[in-house]
Amino acid sequence: MDIAIASLPVIDFWFEFGSNYSYLSVMRIEQEAEKARVRVRWQPFLLGPVFQSFGWTTSPFVLQKAKGEYVWRDMERLCLKYDLPWKKPGNFPRSAILPLRVAVLGAEEPWMAEYCRRMMQINFAQDREIDNAALVTEVLVAMKLPAADILKQALSDENKLKLRRQTETAMTKGIFGAPSFFVGDEMFWGNDRLDDALLFCRAQSG
Amino acid sequence: MDIAIASLPVIDFWFEFGSNYSYLSVMRIEQEAEKARVRVRWQPFLLGPVFQSFGWTTSPFVLQKAKGEYVWRDMERLCLKYDLPWKKPGNFPRSAILPLRVAVLGAEEPWMAEYCRRMMQINFAQDREIDNAALVTEVLVAMKLPAADILKQALSDENKLKLRRQTETAMTKGIFGAPSFFVGDEMFWGNDRLDDALLFCRAQSG
Repeated sequence: MDIAIASLPVIDFWFEFGSNYSYLSVMRIEQEAEKARVRVRWQPFLLGPVFQSFGWTTSPFVLQKAKGEYVWRDMERLCLKYDLPWKKPGNFPRSAILPLRVAVLGAEEPWMAEYCRRMMQINFAQDREIDNAALVTEVLVAMKLPAADILKQALSDENKLKLRRQTETAMTKGIFGAPSFFVGDEMFWGNDRLDDALLFCRAQSG
Repeated sequence: MDIAIASLPVIDFWFEFGSNYSYLSVMRIEQEAEKARVRVRWQPFLLGPVFQSFGWTTSPFVLQKAKGEYVWRDMERLCLKYDLPWKKPGNFPRSAILPLRVAVLGAEEPWMAEYCRRMMQINFAQDREIDNAALVTEVLVAMKLPAADILKQALSDENKLKLRRQTETAMTKGIFGAPSFFVGDEMFWGNDRLDDALLFCRAQSG
């Protein structure tokens, strides 16, 4: 990592490819963090086990009908506001274990941000399934990355364990939804708090 | 009502005195609506029956421990951001039936906005109970209003029914939390959407 970047204050960005509000933050965070002169540490995790720990079998947007209906209209409006493409997913929440395994592997790589944006757009702008090797290969190849190598590493026991550990860490930190941002121990929940979190991060660093 | 005000586009503001995020919007809305040249229609309602309709016995911030803990830190930060006083309520969510009955009665009165701000500050800045005649009288007297008259009208069968009807209307409209804003049929949920709702309202009116 570039020394100038390594010295910037850090925001931890906890997200899930299946989470619609994570989509908004994945698309926005690199640009906003650059403006705020903050370094993003990508923290992919599985939201399913977090919800299961609350006794939920799926997303609260599915369990709570009134809120669920609202959320899709909210997403439409927010995508318009942020100038992002949007197509209501025909299947929600989408499983994303393999894409997240690749994200855990690539978290520190220069291709991480673009990889995440592409994965999110396939889910929330193209309405396609993302949790299969063919799709992940398609994305990696389009980015001119060694897809077979990356998939092999992503599927190693060590890397699978890494994603489980990420999810356990998320729960230990009190994360209850995605996206969530941390500046040190300070948690900010939801895309609506991205700007506040970046301001807080910048202010903390003096 | 002043003709100039009557001709402004309207935002419906659904709120509850027991709701902490409603506190933020009650304190902010008059000033923000004036800037946006939008008229606020105050729509007090009872949040309890809405939560009960989801099978919940109390606020989700109480039922969901991790989210509940976060919410108080979020409130601290937001009150700092909006320059509002804040004291974590020792009792949450506070019952507010009598204050809401007075609010239903006063919804179109010139004293409504200030009455609501005072009630909210007693709950969320002074940490005192609000659902009793002594407290409501104290607030009305401090505003130089005919407290005894207002309380008597607030406790009439007709006015009690009016609050029940408000709450039923809220559920019919798909409201699942407070505050909620409506511009026509367009719902915006949460203090985080107040600015977007006002912009939408202004844009709709041309």
